[in-house]
Amino acid sequence: MSEPRWIVGVDLGGTNVVVGLVPIEGGEPRSVRQLLTLAERGPEDIVNRVAAAVQEAIDDTLSETGAPRESVAGMGIGSPGPLDRASGVVLNTPNLGWVDVPLRGLLSSAVGLEATLDNDANCATFGEWWQGAGRGLSSVVGITLGTGIGGGIVLDGELVHGASDAAGEIGHMSIDFTGRRCKCGNYGCLEAYCSGPNIAARAREGIESGAESLLADLVDGDLDQITAATVYEAVVLGDTYANEVMTETAKILGAGIANIINVLNPEAVVIAGGVTRAGPHLFVPLGAEVRRRAFRSAERACRILPAELPEMAGMVGAAGIFKKVVYGTV
Amino acid sequence: MSEPRWIVGVDLGGTNVVVGLVPIEGGEPRSVRQLLTLAERGPEDIVNRVAAAVQEAIDDTLSETGAPRESVAGMGIGSPGPLDRASGVVLNTPNLGWVDVPLRGLLSSAVGLEATLDNDANCATFGEWWQGAGRGLSSVVGITLGTGIGGGIVLDGELVHGASDAAGEIGHMSIDFTGRRCKCGNYGCLEAYCSGPNIAARAREGIESGAESLLADLVDGDLDQITAATVYEAVVLGDTYANEVMTETAKILGAGIANIINVLNPEAVVIAGGVTRAGPHLFVPLGAEVRRRAFRSAERACRILPAELPEMAGMVGAAGIFKKVVYGTV
Repeated sequence: MSEPRWIVGVDLGGTNVVVGLVPIEGGEPRSVRQLLTLAERGPEDIVNRVAAAVQEAIDDTLSETGAPRESVAGMGIGSPGPLDRASGVVLNTPNLGWVDVPLRGLLSSAVGLEATLDNDANCATFGEWWQGAGRGLSSVVGITLGTGIGGGIVLDGELVHGASDAAGEIGHMSIDFTGRRCKCGNYGCLEAYCSGPNIAARAREGIESGAESLLADLVDGDLDQITAATVYEAVVLGDTYANEVMTETAKILGAGIANIINVLNPEAVVIAGGVTRAGPHLFVPLGAEVRRRAFRSAERACRILPAELPEMAGMVGAAGIFKKVVYGTV
Repeated sequence: MSEPRWIVGVDLGGTNVVVGLVPIEGGEPRSVRQLLTLAERGPEDIVNRVAAAVQEAIDDTLSETGAPRESVAGMGIGSPGPLDRASGVVLNTPNLGWVDVPLRGLLSSAVGLEATLDNDANCATFGEWWQGAGRGLSSVVGITLGTGIGGGIVLDGELVHGASDAAGEIGHMSIDFTGRRCKCGNYGCLEAYCSGPNIAARAREGIESGAESLLADLVDGDLDQITAATVYEAVVLGDTYANEVMTETAKILGAGIANIINVLNPEAVVIAGGVTRAGPHLFVPLGAEVRRRAFRSAERACRILPAELPEMAGMVGAAGIFKKVVYGTV
């Protein structure tokens, strides 16, 4: 019987799927592959294509190392939620358009490996805690700023799943109970201000209300083309208005992170996603806002860190969760 | 060697101290005593008086039951924070006016019992989880609405203490980042709207701005005499304006609890404190607001319950924490 050496990680996103083999003791993933999700083709199509990619990745690693198939201990899968971990079923996922898909069972059978399923934001947070910016810490809150805002919570080395696998929705913490309507139905959620599309929307609204900005030129006057990336580009070009939008984003995010610090007192908040490319334009005003708002002893105990595993955190974390579930520890 | 049968609980508050013997398997506390804190007399005075009350309570229970002194396993102490659990030191407590008081060591020596120290809001939450409204549940968030708003978090039967014993400050979660200034320095904290004094302040402000209300009559025109209890009294008398203030309180609290539900997905939120006497005037609009705001699967998994151990939760919880720390389980 040979030692288990790798765990397959699968990070199924709304746009892409990332697949790879993660060393069971951590370290650089091998044979990483990316494919398009194409969710509209339905679960069967994607399960077949992901299973093929996993098989290729396994074959590559085994042929490169000469290790036997039993070296692959199993597979951790991350998927958009909501989902039911116990049954391995993806329940009702707007990002994929799926309802009640037994993803864990389908992929596990197709690949021939035992598998676990957890949501993508939890996987990303667990990945950053296990192998990324949160390495060696006891408690980490992860926030991913993308099309939406995902979140995950690791306390004492354990993911907080909650009573119905729904914990960690940091993006849907309201920081203005009479504020902007969020697509979740609530008002003033962090996501309603600080997701990529909402950063762009706020920038656009200001220009429509008369703000002068390079942003209009960058999109040749077609304001609908403004994205969070355009805002960042304008910041780098020295545009005052774009910088105001970025600073406001940082302040609102800072108010949300101060809440998290007051409530959970974590050792680190790890921020991932495209917006973090704004670097100091984001992190400097964000840090100042957190210091202004959070309790001193809690704020001092908490580092605010950019993620270290862009693109990979979810896949690595999915594998880490498999290890945790099966072996009891990472 | 006789079996341990009781744990002493001590709940040291800004106004009162509650002392009693809690059966180690749970159940009705014995020989409960209450004394005034009189914090201005300093730590030595209070340590002496609390130690005397504990000794009396122990003597009563032992003489009533004929049990030997070894039946008392130890002592759990709750105190306003911030504090350092590892050293048992109360750090810098505005409510008591103390700085760096080694409360656990002082009381432990004075009474001759091994002791643990945790903060009052954690103790109250742990008490409600162990023996009160949260009995038998895995995860409970406790919120106490009083002079301030205290909070505590139990996940999988464990208190969440955080990196610097500062977790659980639910009252200092901002639900309006440009809102009312809070005495903690932040803006729009739940406490800035929903603590007793702030409910009263909001009621007063409305009347000063011209709202018609029985409240003015109830305090003979001296608006400074309005308290949260006066507001509740006016609600019961059918006063429309007071009912508006109570409904607004419920809505704001509902926004905060929806945040907690989205972030932690607990099985229950247990609400304690004088304001809960408003009963359905508080809980009905609060429940509606939570349903309007929180994720459906998380909201459905969570009960919002009034506390069951008023006055006693902190003392019972302090004893429960001792048991948990020393025996590893309750």
